[in-house]
Amino acid sequence: MTPRPALTVVGATGGAGAVMLQILTQHADVWGEVRLVASARSAGRKLLVRGAECEVLALGEEALEGADVVVFLVPAEVAARWAPVAAAKGAVVVDSSAAFRMDPDVPLVVPELNPHAVRMRPRGIVASPHATTLAMSVAVGALHAEFCLSELVVSTYQAASGEGQPGVEALRRQVSLVAGTQLGTNPGDVRRAVGDELGPFPAPLALNVVPWTGELADDGWSSQELGIRDELRKVLGLPRLPVSATCVRVPVVTTHSASVHARFENEVEVARAHEILATAPGVVLFDNPAVGEFPTPADVVGTDPTWVGRVRRSPDDPRVLELFVCGDNLRKGTALNAAHIAELAAREFNGR
Amino acid sequence: MTPRPALTVVGATGGAGAVMLQILTQHADVWGEVRLVASARSAGRKLLVRGAECEVLALGEEALEGADVVVFLVPAEVAARWAPVAAAKGAVVVDSSAAFRMDPDVPLVVPELNPHAVRMRPRGIVASPHATTLAMSVAVGALHAEFCLSELVVSTYQAASGEGQPGVEALRRQVSLVAGTQLGTNPGDVRRAVGDELGPFPAPLALNVVPWTGELADDGWSSQELGIRDELRKVLGLPRLPVSATCVRVPVVTTHSASVHARFENEVEVARAHEILATAPGVVLFDNPAVGEFPTPADVVGTDPTWVGRVRRSPDDPRVLELFVCGDNLRKGTALNAAHIAELAAREFNGR
Repeated sequence: MTPRPALTVVGATGGAGAVMLQILTQHADVWGEVRLVASARSAGRKLLVRGAECEVLALGEEALEGADVVVFLVPAEVAARWAPVAAAKGAVVVDSSAAFRMDPDVPLVVPELNPHAVRMRPRGIVASPHATTLAMSVAVGALHAEFCLSELVVSTYQAASGEGQPGVEALRRQVSLVAGTQLGTNPGDVRRAVGDELGPFPAPLALNVVPWTGELADDGWSSQELGIRDELRKVLGLPRLPVSATCVRVPVVTTHSASVHARFENEVEVARAHEILATAPGVVLFDNPAVGEFPTPADVVGTDPTWVGRVRRSPDDPRVLELFVCGDNLRKGTALNAAHIAELAAREFNGR
Repeated sequence: MTPRPALTVVGATGGAGAVMLQILTQHADVWGEVRLVASARSAGRKLLVRGAECEVLALGEEALEGADVVVFLVPAEVAARWAPVAAAKGAVVVDSSAAFRMDPDVPLVVPELNPHAVRMRPRGIVASPHATTLAMSVAVGALHAEFCLSELVVSTYQAASGEGQPGVEALRRQVSLVAGTQLGTNPGDVRRAVGDELGPFPAPLALNVVPWTGELADDGWSSQELGIRDELRKVLGLPRLPVSATCVRVPVVTTHSASVHARFENEVEVARAHEILATAPGVVLFDNPAVGEFPTPADVVGTDPTWVGRVRRSPDDPRVLELFVCGDNLRKGTALNAAHIAELAAREFNGR
């Protein structure tokens, strides 16, 4: 019997890391040795994975030795430094950060859409898209296969955990500061109550929405808005697809949502779109507003698929569909997609 | 000296009514007698307007006698019943509800865009658009005058007070129920905590977003989504403008926001769009993300204008602008626009 491949998870102690440990326990038969790695600060902690305690190692050359696959669930600057080190040691690297997504020698993979791309990795690195891209890509990709996309306009409703644990903690502190008050009807009252508890956000998030995520890019765009455009083009294999994104942070703990306006080359029918979405891998169709069925983050959080509802055809253009999608940004949005990619890579080791 | 015209406000005790009393106090020189009217339940209450106490009268034939202008700040079914009664008594009626907005014999007026339409009122009734339409119409109208609109795609971020005081109270109760907890990361935990405190919303609103506002209309659209399309077309005088709207409720007390994707006949320049928006009446341009300047509801609430930021040109189409707009749905969105229309009508009485 072939030994099962060895997996190393870098960033095991963060929010996405916690979800990865759950996934590894659920998919316990895929991997042989599992090694957990985090920053030196977390080294020595013991975490439960596949029913057994596992000691966390400090990120460094030694911790990256000997793995067949290394998954990075860390910020881009950490991945940029260490992913090439792991690749040089012979591992297949799966990176969930922005560090390599637009590198032409790094495939960007959503296993439901372009699983074959995992094998085309001249740098030994495979990237996973941003959680916001992932929330919509599976649904949009399934519709594209039938109707041929010609344009996307996207507005997001992004959760606090997109800024990691500091984002979640800041939102929770802010919600406590505004709870039980009459705030939210006078200029600046929420801002005064929140004070310097902004956390990683550029404005109060409790009782507010903030039309800014990511860094400042060119011409007033944010890095995440341009990232959605670049990543959807790369994942869908449509390098000239027009994509306009507006990224907005909302006071939700976890699960990103997006309002998607999709124009296709061909005329669309809602009934056919429903059939496609109902059978698309990784998608749950939840679309019957007459009985209150549409996806919301509170119902979707903690689940694996992308949920799709509010499917409508434009009364002005029979080639346009509107959708509302929700996806847990820590599960499919980060850890689960990385795990799926790692499992595709693991298959290569089965014939060893 | 001509006596100043007499004004009656129906719905004086609601959220928009409270804002109207502030506006009447600020614009104290416009009106002669001011009469306040509400449901029989609120009759006899005394409210402060222009520095004096004023007793609230019960809505009925008698309360509607003698006014030159009657403003209705009440639900559509109440306006549908009583606005024609007031008009039959000779008053100019200004209605803020949906009851008459799409009546071809009722002008739909945003004073910054189509003030002349106030005089063309065969039924004696002038309608004010929905707060969500108002939040964007002034900015979009100013840009249309220069560049000629050819398409709009809109996603909203609508506040709880769009469902009146019951909406505000439900959101506040829900925020108290989730404050200080670890809710928002497990399936259904927010829904369980909120329990039967949904108020007027079809799903929990605290720590959530809900892609549904209004009633079920045809083909999966909501009445508010089709209403934005119909109202923008009517206000802008563009009866065939393609408009796709997705309406989403967010956990904000007051101030609606919208992400607007606007395509024009002509090429646009951000610098010129900035000039237009900076000088458009009723608009504040707040657009410098490099120093954290973009509008958010927490900063806009309680102010009169529509705030506009995140102005970007599409890298894929030089005729497309993206905007993010915020407007207080109780001020410009309801009471202030109705007051502006009423003041336009009041000028007609100055020559009496």
